[in-house]
Amino acid sequence: MEEKILLGHGSGGRMMNELIHTLIREKLGADSVQLDDSAVLAVEKGEIAFTTDTFTVTPIFFPGGDIGKLAVNGTVNDLAVMGATPLYLSVGLILEEGFLLSDLGKIMDSMRRAADEAGVKIVTGDTKVVEKGKGDKIFINTSGIGIFHGPRQRRQIGPGDLILINGFIGDHGIAIMAERNGLSFSAGLTSDSAPLNHLISAIIRAFPDSIKFMRDATRGGLVAVLNEIVQGQGFSARLQEGQLPIRPEVAGVCDILGLDPLYAANEGKVVLVVKKEAGEAMVKIMRGMKEGGQAAVIGEMAGEFPGQVFSRTPVGGKRLLNLLSEEQLPRIC
Amino acid sequence: MEEKILLGHGSGGRMMNELIHTLIREKLGADSVQLDDSAVLAVEKGEIAFTTDTFTVTPIFFPGGDIGKLAVNGTVNDLAVMGATPLYLSVGLILEEGFLLSDLGKIMDSMRRAADEAGVKIVTGDTKVVEKGKGDKIFINTSGIGIFHGPRQRRQIGPGDLILINGFIGDHGIAIMAERNGLSFSAGLTSDSAPLNHLISAIIRAFPDSIKFMRDATRGGLVAVLNEIVQGQGFSARLQEGQLPIRPEVAGVCDILGLDPLYAANEGKVVLVVKKEAGEAMVKIMRGMKEGGQAAVIGEMAGEFPGQVFSRTPVGGKRLLNLLSEEQLPRIC
Repeated sequence: MEEKILLGHGSGGRMMNELIHTLIREKLGADSVQLDDSAVLAVEKGEIAFTTDTFTVTPIFFPGGDIGKLAVNGTVNDLAVMGATPLYLSVGLILEEGFLLSDLGKIMDSMRRAADEAGVKIVTGDTKVVEKGKGDKIFINTSGIGIFHGPRQRRQIGPGDLILINGFIGDHGIAIMAERNGLSFSAGLTSDSAPLNHLISAIIRAFPDSIKFMRDATRGGLVAVLNEIVQGQGFSARLQEGQLPIRPEVAGVCDILGLDPLYAANEGKVVLVVKKEAGEAMVKIMRGMKEGGQAAVIGEMAGEFPGQVFSRTPVGGKRLLNLLSEEQLPRIC
Repeated sequence: MEEKILLGHGSGGRMMNELIHTLIREKLGADSVQLDDSAVLAVEKGEIAFTTDTFTVTPIFFPGGDIGKLAVNGTVNDLAVMGATPLYLSVGLILEEGFLLSDLGKIMDSMRRAADEAGVKIVTGDTKVVEKGKGDKIFINTSGIGIFHGPRQRRQIGPGDLILINGFIGDHGIAIMAERNGLSFSAGLTSDSAPLNHLISAIIRAFPDSIKFMRDATRGGLVAVLNEIVQGQGFSARLQEGQLPIRPEVAGVCDILGLDPLYAANEGKVVLVVKKEAGEAMVKIMRGMKEGGQAAVIGEMAGEFPGQVFSRTPVGGKRLLNLLSEEQLPRIC
């Protein structure tokens, strides 16, 4: 019989010690995960970025990744879009009684791989066990610390600035929905979960003065990010529908399930607002990198309809892209 | 009808924005909780402490506190026992569909009060909503950052060193158990949840060279901390049963429920191992402070029975205090 998480694994006794030392810490990296109450980390004088995110995804394994990969990349990306270099992560686990130890092992392996790929260290952690029916297999909180190289600048966004994205829109959300709905033709559709810090670092180095805004488009999708930018402002965000990078498979699943990829979650996409003159060159740099193969200019900030996000259809029509009250999708991340 | 958490509150849409801005961020401190993907924090060059802890307590409101107070104090204390000054906290919420907004509001208020008392700022957060039956009202992760003033030192523990605690043992765990079991005579028994950073800072200032080890005694209680210290070492930890500060009410509940306060969780207790000559003076300092009124020398490190924790009974008997395999109590924190 497969070994399962028991309430005793969360007890503070010997079972918990064994679980943490032989499985969790071993797999996350016994050389980096510190054992004291806090990890002790060296920092340079200056500013650090500090972020937290909790992951509660169903299913926990899906095409292109799992909840562990999401948890590492999500927090890495929250630091990267601030312009910080992600360095250190914490991992807080809530395990449901009965969860398979083998699945926990797979997820810890996946977190370690993702951390290695992003170049961050998991330095501290915590594990709690809840009764069956009081959780959902596994929830993961990752908090993260990054450092800034040089002073941070805030630049004013305005009409004429370009909107860029580093690749296909909506892959994660639609892959999860396809998986949940057992859509067999979805073969090949995978989550885009990926660390964005290397890509962002490359474009900051190449264009230190041209980036006005960066944000990873997760829950709420591209539309949520753009609404946040324009809300209460004297300008709008205008997308050009023909120019949006959307996989045919994603468009297909969206047609069948009645979803809009612009509102779907991404887990490896950054939305950038940049000075007009730098846009095309920045797209070129991103296209030369693993996480930016399908980068594109997808729209621009405009003076018309201030405070709104909208798209122009290929024939010149206008479609308003409001923030939804709730979610178009069942919860996916 | 009372307002409840709905799945839409976790959507990334307008409902989530409203919940975060009008309730969560407002109550946690709109002046300190930053809105970007990460909080940006100033640090001095040197070392920082970084920790994470997730709180999954039932009931969420109990005599002497609630899950929010626990979550702030727990992470503050994990930083303080490292010798660091706690500065910044993150808050990650997992809310169950149907959870009362009024209860959420109370918990956020409580977190803010605890943060103010400890002198830390809540600077970043995240909120997720899970379906009814996939969570348990509210889980809270707090991660924290502290700084070190001056170099940290590791001192060798050995026979003759004294074991100190800042007050009554087992209050939190036994208060929760009494509450769960509806023991009416438990009136007056309350959790000891409290921030320890002010007390620890005072004794470090007074005795910069005398503290060899500090740890907050939470899950697994005093016994878990002492076993961690002596495991695999050439010395033991010997407690003197007559000298242990245990409330009569706690002893009474323990007798009835068959529990041992030495294994029960505390949420405002630090166990110290200190040089023999400093022990009594340190107890005196602690007794002059709010969180140290019942501080005491409770035992010492000994040469006999290396690697073990045991107590001497008033009549000279010996009781072994092994780490339990599981927990003596149903899960309480």
